[in-house]
Amino acid sequence: MNSPEAPALTGALAQQLAELKRGAQDILTEPDLCKKLVRGRPMVVKAGFDPTAPDLHLGHTVLINKMRQFQQFGHEVVFLIGDFTGMIGDPTGRNITRPRLTPDEIKANAITYEKQVFKILDGEKTRVDFNSRWFSPMGAAGLIEIAAKYTVARMIERDDFTKRFRANQPIALHEFLYPLVQGYDSVALKADVELGGTDQKFNLLVGRSLQEHYGQEPQVVLTVPLLEGLDGVQKMSKSLGNYVGIAEDADTQFGKLMSISDTLMWRYFELLSFRPLADIAQLQRAVTEGRNPRDVKFELAEEIVARFHDRAAATQARENFIARFSQKTLPTDLPLQHVCATDADGIKLAAALREAGLAASNGEAHRKITEGAVRVDGAKITDREARLAANAEHILQLGPRRFARVRISPPK
Amino acid sequence: MNSPEAPALTGALAQQLAELKRGAQDILTEPDLCKKLVRGRPMVVKAGFDPTAPDLHLGHTVLINKMRQFQQFGHEVVFLIGDFTGMIGDPTGRNITRPRLTPDEIKANAITYEKQVFKILDGEKTRVDFNSRWFSPMGAAGLIEIAAKYTVARMIERDDFTKRFRANQPIALHEFLYPLVQGYDSVALKADVELGGTDQKFNLLVGRSLQEHYGQEPQVVLTVPLLEGLDGVQKMSKSLGNYVGIAEDADTQFGKLMSISDTLMWRYFELLSFRPLADIAQLQRAVTEGRNPRDVKFELAEEIVARFHDRAAATQARENFIARFSQKTLPTDLPLQHVCATDADGIKLAAALREAGLAASNGEAHRKITEGAVRVDGAKITDREARLAANAEHILQLGPRRFARVRISPPK
Repeated sequence: MNSPEAPALTGALAQQLAELKRGAQDILTEPDLCKKLVRGRPMVVKAGFDPTAPDLHLGHTVLINKMRQFQQFGHEVVFLIGDFTGMIGDPTGRNITRPRLTPDEIKANAITYEKQVFKILDGEKTRVDFNSRWFSPMGAAGLIEIAAKYTVARMIERDDFTKRFRANQPIALHEFLYPLVQGYDSVALKADVELGGTDQKFNLLVGRSLQEHYGQEPQVVLTVPLLEGLDGVQKMSKSLGNYVGIAEDADTQFGKLMSISDTLMWRYFELLSFRPLADIAQLQRAVTEGRNPRDVKFELAEEIVARFHDRAAATQARENFIARFSQKTLPTDLPLQHVCATDADGIKLAAALREAGLAASNGEAHRKITEGAVRVDGAKITDREARLAANAEHILQLGPRRFARVRISPPK
Repeated sequence: MNSPEAPALTGALAQQLAELKRGAQDILTEPDLCKKLVRGRPMVVKAGFDPTAPDLHLGHTVLINKMRQFQQFGHEVVFLIGDFTGMIGDPTGRNITRPRLTPDEIKANAITYEKQVFKILDGEKTRVDFNSRWFSPMGAAGLIEIAAKYTVARMIERDDFTKRFRANQPIALHEFLYPLVQGYDSVALKADVELGGTDQKFNLLVGRSLQEHYGQEPQVVLTVPLLEGLDGVQKMSKSLGNYVGIAEDADTQFGKLMSISDTLMWRYFELLSFRPLADIAQLQRAVTEGRNPRDVKFELAEEIVARFHDRAAATQARENFIARFSQKTLPTDLPLQHVCATDADGIKLAAALREAGLAASNGEAHRKITEGAVRVDGAKITDREARLAANAEHILQLGPRRFARVRISPPK
């Protein structure tokens, strides 16, 4: 979708553009991105992160994977830690969960970040920076001068501000300053591209606008979508329990990834796999022509486990997974039962246990889960609220000897 | 108008309250003021001033007179120069008339201020302060913390912001920060009272609100009205030409003050005279009982000229004024002509010249004014747009020999 003003890219540049666009939600604007690409100079690619203690899951890595793509094409990736506002703490004093961070805490958090993200990014080539570098020496006067570059009306246009303003819910004035702080980071870094989640789109555009006010070429804003969790419906999050943590052990990661639906598998290939688009197209053709999607899912799970552990651990996790199904531990010759999802999100594990005849009631199922007596595909589940997605196959186990092989069919 | 919660003041305190209320537009709130007064401790009384080069006229002195009253009752008056924002300059870069002031320029302007206002205030007892003292060392983070104490919705409530917001006229974000800066000055000074023009009411209330957020007793806001100019209608301003500059020579000041209407004279007594309220009531009674208002106007003019020059100069100005009327220069035995004002504002001088038979047409009158051939009460007037207020008496002169004594009666 090149606009008339965008230069037409060919050969390697066209391929680079296709990979950079892969899985992106918004690109503002693509012609601008093309113009920067044809110059052939490395671009400064910024992504900002909170300075709070990170414990990342695959959902967070969609953004980091996009940073990696830019890095692999030779661009300069800046991992920017927004420690300036972190040091302010919550100025309203209302949010006790957001204490003021000390410089030492921020340094420690940065190291934890690096340990995790350098499994994806090349640590040698990644520039880790902190926005306190330009904001700490800046006086109150400097902030006022930045504020002069943006209007109240445009700030209120941000979705959540509009809603709160219309509903007469208070917006404290400092909330209008944070997007400016984030936007000024792009000025300080002279960013060519800023990456962020789709929920960050407005703030990223503030950066674009501020750069113009400071006489810089405005950055390209590229947003990535929120990754669906294992259930294929809600976004991946710790609190929903539908996540794969990047610090989890290899067997857990492998088992969780094998539990996703065939449809979600292709989404994960797009956003999480490092394989080129052409490879993935080939896999899709193979499945269409009869290859077992389970084998393709093995390849995805192995690639991701290898990323956060190593190749050997991934191979072992695969063997362990197969062993649980094929050897005595988990019977694979069970008859396949069809359990109907209760809603579009799938079904609660407890309900599935009852439907499959492993528990007499939801009450018993809940109790057994809490006791640690329930496993899904060999992995122990102790969350009473755990759910199984539709369109997936699982081995359910209750206690040492009771098994069921179920396929969750979509709701009627 | 004491509210039930206000302590009832008696004796000297009641008298003090009456003088402090004299000519005030708004007091927010009077019960708060009473509470502070009965404690018997000196109050910190703040008034803020722009750091631009001052060239004051009587309109500006209404506020300074109010400061003097507080000072005379033993309170600590702070003459606060808002140099912090002055050093920022105009952050939009659009207003070339507001250049960034250097610390040296601000210091020079402060001295000019002192030279002028210490004709009214007691220099020994006045604390001159600069808000850069607390804002210059404050980082951007400090300003963000202040911004957290105030909401967007409340800021938009300021009249001019509401109008511009509704009319889709841009409001730059830094404009929301200036009232906070001014309000925080009250926190830094622990102000008990803030004085300001009636157009500053909103900003003064921000200070009241911020003090509460910082755990301080909120300041009392006392606003003074805008002084009417010599025409008695529009506010006194340089550009309207209806002003008395405090640096003007004694004869000019005296002549200008003698030109005001009898009604306006009482307003000037209230806002500009240092005579106690009881004295003024007595003068009013005397006029009602037949005393010539012109003699009372002499007393007002003499008091004010003496303030900015000295007693001898005031006496001399009075004598010069009388001489211009009684001696050969200006005939006083002219028959009084009644000239009807064309509108509530009075009449244009050119039209009055024509009405009085000194000029054959408005065109001739305009030409003569431009040539410098026209005097009003002995003072040369070269502004073609000059006006005469209703309810006042003047000697008009065109060329060396043509005179008329006119009284401008109200429009029919």
